[in-house]
Amino acid sequence: MDVVIAQKPHDRLAALLAEDLAAVNALIRARMASEHAPRIPEVTAHLVEAGGKRLRPMLTLAAARLCGYSGDDHVKLAATVEFIHTATLLHDDVVDESQQRRGRPTANLLWDNQSSVLVGDYLFARSFQLMVETGSLRVLDILANAAATIAEGEVLQLTAARNLATTESTYLQIVRGKTAALFSAATEVGGVIASAPEDQVRALHAYGDALGIAFQIADDLLDYQGDSTATGKNVGDDFREGKLTLPVIKAIAAADEGERAFWQRVIGTGKQEPGDLDTAQGLLRRHGALEATRADAFAWADTARAALAALPEAPVRDMLSDLAAYVVDRLN
Amino acid sequence: MDVVIAQKPHDRLAALLAEDLAAVNALIRARMASEHAPRIPEVTAHLVEAGGKRLRPMLTLAAARLCGYSGDDHVKLAATVEFIHTATLLHDDVVDESQQRRGRPTANLLWDNQSSVLVGDYLFARSFQLMVETGSLRVLDILANAAATIAEGEVLQLTAARNLATTESTYLQIVRGKTAALFSAATEVGGVIASAPEDQVRALHAYGDALGIAFQIADDLLDYQGDSTATGKNVGDDFREGKLTLPVIKAIAAADEGERAFWQRVIGTGKQEPGDLDTAQGLLRRHGALEATRADAFAWADTARAALAALPEAPVRDMLSDLAAYVVDRLN
Repeated sequence: MDVVIAQKPHDRLAALLAEDLAAVNALIRARMASEHAPRIPEVTAHLVEAGGKRLRPMLTLAAARLCGYSGDDHVKLAATVEFIHTATLLHDDVVDESQQRRGRPTANLLWDNQSSVLVGDYLFARSFQLMVETGSLRVLDILANAAATIAEGEVLQLTAARNLATTESTYLQIVRGKTAALFSAATEVGGVIASAPEDQVRALHAYGDALGIAFQIADDLLDYQGDSTATGKNVGDDFREGKLTLPVIKAIAAADEGERAFWQRVIGTGKQEPGDLDTAQGLLRRHGALEATRADAFAWADTARAALAALPEAPVRDMLSDLAAYVVDRLN
Repeated sequence: MDVVIAQKPHDRLAALLAEDLAAVNALIRARMASEHAPRIPEVTAHLVEAGGKRLRPMLTLAAARLCGYSGDDHVKLAATVEFIHTATLLHDDVVDESQQRRGRPTANLLWDNQSSVLVGDYLFARSFQLMVETGSLRVLDILANAAATIAEGEVLQLTAARNLATTESTYLQIVRGKTAALFSAATEVGGVIASAPEDQVRALHAYGDALGIAFQIADDLLDYQGDSTATGKNVGDDFREGKLTLPVIKAIAAADEGERAFWQRVIGTGKQEPGDLDTAQGLLRRHGALEATRADAFAWADTARAALAALPEAPVRDMLSDLAAYVVDRLN
């Protein structure tokens, strides 16, 4: 097998963007410092240097390069996006009372919830300073709207948990908040900073939006059918937390009275017994919910790839296309 | 007694700025809405409509008026400042595990910590959208820096708690973060939006900074010598939480060996016994720490009033001057 083909698309992107990514990492390290409060870089480094894939900043760098950008504000925006992502991870782990993130104990466990909340706030403020430095009001507008959508989606997820009436439309809103809003903002600002034509900026937004949705649907599906050694996710986490993800929403829509009572008990009230996850997986299979969810994920990946048609032909465009394919290839 | 004189300065300011304040309140109500997540306006309304004094938005409105501003971006900025303040209150109450705020149960108690963290994030994002709408990069720069100083000060306060080595300089840094940064940003952006001359903008910043510091020092002093029925504060709260506030820092600096052991036990390790607050208050009196703290508060109030000299003579300027005096008059 050819070595280049064997590499994952985000590794190929990282290789292509290596110089810019190094600049982003240097900027992140410089801006996570705090003259007065050493707790801030400690907590941030724990998360930022735990080997995240830098997927979101790479999207900004790739979009800017694809649109022919030659300045260095894309590095600031890529760091901005990673800071926003890190801030939301810190707050998410407090909200979900998580114990592990990227295979290591979470910051809320190593330090405390207080540090996670406040360092998250600090990183959000730092991201805000970085984007102001670009001097682009349009970029600020895009990122401010993304920040609001992210927080709204998180609140929506909180209130939708254990609610069997949650619809696919609400699910999509939550997914846009928790994942797609930052993906689409990351790609869009790359085009905006490059002064790309409007149709290209719209295409970059559409690509990031669809990529994020495909990514999250795939993630939610893997929570019911994945192999934890391959994905790093524990199968059944969402089930145990009573999250109304797409496979479950589809199965509930097709449920008979007895099945509804089952879902009400295990998700609605959270009274779970041994064997419930197996039963749930059986119901998902019986109603074709896994296959239907898988089809949705592939459709969103196709939407992402199709959006790229409006953008200039270039190796980086092919990699973005491969990335969209890869996100759902995990499901095969 | 003359009725006008009997009124408190912030009530007179509120009367003078009544029309603008009504616009700010309407804007706050409009922007705290969420199409998708009703939990957001519920939590926000609980706090925003609990009868806060709207001191920070009034500072922005007053500064803009004093500098002759005639547009309506000052209303957006005043709402921005109140949203930032509300977001920090929501997060503070999670961090401090508070039960009460403005005489009512806190949001983290009525709902949960999750809602307080995420709704705080939402309000911060909303504040960011509002300030972007003004189109002023300088305003965005000031508020982004203030947000970073606020979060850094909060982290610093967290790590300085129970640390007897905390200096007056660190205390001042914390106070700038928790209080003065938003006061000074609130007044400064009022001048910037009015295109005031640089010396006036600097004076507005200096006024807000000194006012905020005087306000916080007075608050910290009242925690040791206040009358809870008059101030609404419970005497001894900071003591019980092991906060290193100015009176204690001064008393520790003057402590002999036995006194240091006392402070180490009650603040450093938090092992408090009945009567410890009385003992602490006795030590504060013996070393003149209360008087010295009081003198510092009055000096900062004088600094605030002096800064106003660079600004145009006007009734609103007199009210800002009276406000600075009032903040420390609570100590008499």
